[in-house]
Amino acid sequence: MATASKQYEELTVESAVALARTHYPFPEGAALECDEIGDGNLNYVFRVADPESGKSVILKQALPYAKVVGESWPLTLQRAQIEADALRKHGEFVPNLVPTVYATDAVLALTVMEDLSHLTIAREGLIAGKAYPQLSTDIGEYLARTLFQTSDFALHPFEKKELAAAFSNPELCKITEDLIFTDPFFDNETNDFEPELKEAVEALWANKALQLEAAKLKFSFLTEAEALLHGDLHTGSIFASDSETKVIDPEFAYYGPIGFDVGLFLANLIFQSLTRNGDQRNVVNSHIERTWETFEARFTDLWKNKGIEAFQQTDGYREFIIEKIFRDALGFAGCELIRRTIGLAHVKDLDGIEDDSRRIELKEQALHLGEKLILQRAEVKSIYEVTALIGEAE
Amino acid sequence: MATASKQYEELTVESAVALARTHYPFPEGAALECDEIGDGNLNYVFRVADPESGKSVILKQALPYAKVVGESWPLTLQRAQIEADALRKHGEFVPNLVPTVYATDAVLALTVMEDLSHLTIAREGLIAGKAYPQLSTDIGEYLARTLFQTSDFALHPFEKKELAAAFSNPELCKITEDLIFTDPFFDNETNDFEPELKEAVEALWANKALQLEAAKLKFSFLTEAEALLHGDLHTGSIFASDSETKVIDPEFAYYGPIGFDVGLFLANLIFQSLTRNGDQRNVVNSHIERTWETFEARFTDLWKNKGIEAFQQTDGYREFIIEKIFRDALGFAGCELIRRTIGLAHVKDLDGIEDDSRRIELKEQALHLGEKLILQRAEVKSIYEVTALIGEAE
Repeated sequence: MATASKQYEELTVESAVALARTHYPFPEGAALECDEIGDGNLNYVFRVADPESGKSVILKQALPYAKVVGESWPLTLQRAQIEADALRKHGEFVPNLVPTVYATDAVLALTVMEDLSHLTIAREGLIAGKAYPQLSTDIGEYLARTLFQTSDFALHPFEKKELAAAFSNPELCKITEDLIFTDPFFDNETNDFEPELKEAVEALWANKALQLEAAKLKFSFLTEAEALLHGDLHTGSIFASDSETKVIDPEFAYYGPIGFDVGLFLANLIFQSLTRNGDQRNVVNSHIERTWETFEARFTDLWKNKGIEAFQQTDGYREFIIEKIFRDALGFAGCELIRRTIGLAHVKDLDGIEDDSRRIELKEQALHLGEKLILQRAEVKSIYEVTALIGEAE
Repeated sequence: MATASKQYEELTVESAVALARTHYPFPEGAALECDEIGDGNLNYVFRVADPESGKSVILKQALPYAKVVGESWPLTLQRAQIEADALRKHGEFVPNLVPTVYATDAVLALTVMEDLSHLTIAREGLIAGKAYPQLSTDIGEYLARTLFQTSDFALHPFEKKELAAAFSNPELCKITEDLIFTDPFFDNETNDFEPELKEAVEALWANKALQLEAAKLKFSFLTEAEALLHGDLHTGSIFASDSETKVIDPEFAYYGPIGFDVGLFLANLIFQSLTRNGDQRNVVNSHIERTWETFEARFTDLWKNKGIEAFQQTDGYREFIIEKIFRDALGFAGCELIRRTIGLAHVKDLDGIEDDSRRIELKEQALHLGEKLILQRAEVKSIYEVTALIGEAE
């Protein structure tokens, strides 16, 4: 269901409750409670609940500006519609792995959706030492299904091209183009790192081979319309428990290279792995390996059973595509490792470490691992070599 | 200027004259003459002229169906708008190398444009033995300017993505996907070849390495949104004289891999080269070489002087991109050589040869050269190796 209000205005607790009643089947006359639970940087997130029936719903409203490290800049409200449309499109293939969208209002930049507050943001849980046994099989499944099913391997070209045009997302793509693929590789004012990292960062900026590979990866992000990506699949975009996984926040969705979603998720597991030791690290390394194993196995199943491409049966074609995705994923993971360490937006896995020398040490490891994945992505033989590299980073 | 009629109807000589008066500044009261000069398969082309002033104009109207070898199938009228928009967009960069568009009417699928009937279609002229001394420098220039200037190397990403969405062209792309990249590689009913070629064609269908490379090239065509292509740049889409070159008919325009336009043009010169001997062949081989030389030199100039990419100065990046375009172009040229020999749509350069054994011999050469370019595109060192291969094909 989609409605359109007359003009944009920021929701209040009162208007959120009224909209919740309209768009969600609360019992008549229910005494609804409402809290704003977002971080307020990009969106309002209102949770509206009826304590008596136990029913609840989320109202997410995009704000017309983004606040990052104290600065504020305008940001298209259209991202709310992109996000809701991506949730619905991906939901066709993995209804169990994304929240249900009940309604949208394009003018209010509002999405009314399933309340997932019984789950925890995976990054927070992982930092707290959770194992999340389902995480990697679920995300491997999510990646394979959403990406294969929106690609030319599964869709009639008319449908694929219509989706690609509908999910044109220039403003949010530009954030990625700048913050992941450009600024961290140059001495740009958006970068943010501790003085202790200066030497490592300057070596990175002076690494000409790395610059060239970063340029190639950026070109791939700019031009390769392979599938409808989530576009920002880090562990902060995933709600999880021991038995459930839900991917949220696809406001960066657009048609791009399949390896980008895979690589971003792997990189964010790598951050977590770097912070752990022994068996605890093995838990995360198993997630890294199982993500790829599950992705590859499911992608192969889909290729064989849902593929419509005339060359589907051609010897070596599936292997070529999976190999391309793997190489791309390693390169994109490398970019994410670097930008989350020295760029504008960091990860709590590392920034949350209070011991200065330990934090700096791990950040240097993240940087070196990022460089390695970018430079050696053509040679790395398997996902097991990737987890081995994490151990070698010390 | 753009007008919109109320409903589509096929033009007549009378309505063409009336529209010509509206959209082109003929002298008041001029006694206009009008001829339909198209081939009637896809479009009407009316030439409206005032013999007294010597002024004339072309009215091109898309027909709602395509007739190919006796069959008729519906085809989007939107292609007229795509074609006019591509002529205008490319005209911003090479006003001297495309016809001027005076007006369009989206409902009538009509474009009013510059009359080029003082020129000859390059394919016809080349078959008749013309040298067209400007042809390759002009087309090299056309390729470099139109492709560089519509790429991420020159455009702000917002503008590029807006153009990419606006030039989404699924129906015409599908024709290419089927007729160039799919059908000729399988025993498909759209294929069309002499019985004498059966053995060579069956060997081609059984060539698994070739199938795999064709699959990769098709994937590139489907996914790589690098620049606004002409999309069908063969020698039948070019008007020429000894001193002028004009590229027409970009109804297949869409955002695709840069090498596709380059490769299609090269392949069509290769057909012509195959039909010639000695000095006459050298004239065409020089065109092949000079097209690439001019493209590479001009693309390099533009990169240095008009490039906006942050990695513009990165050592080896320009060379990497130009190398990618070269390899892609060879592969796409190979596909064009094959499909124009055994697929649905042939070229007069070969089909027009009356001597049966000579025609079959040249078609076999075209097929083998096509296979070679596809399979060896990663190893061919230069455009001079390509022209050398033409000699070796005998």
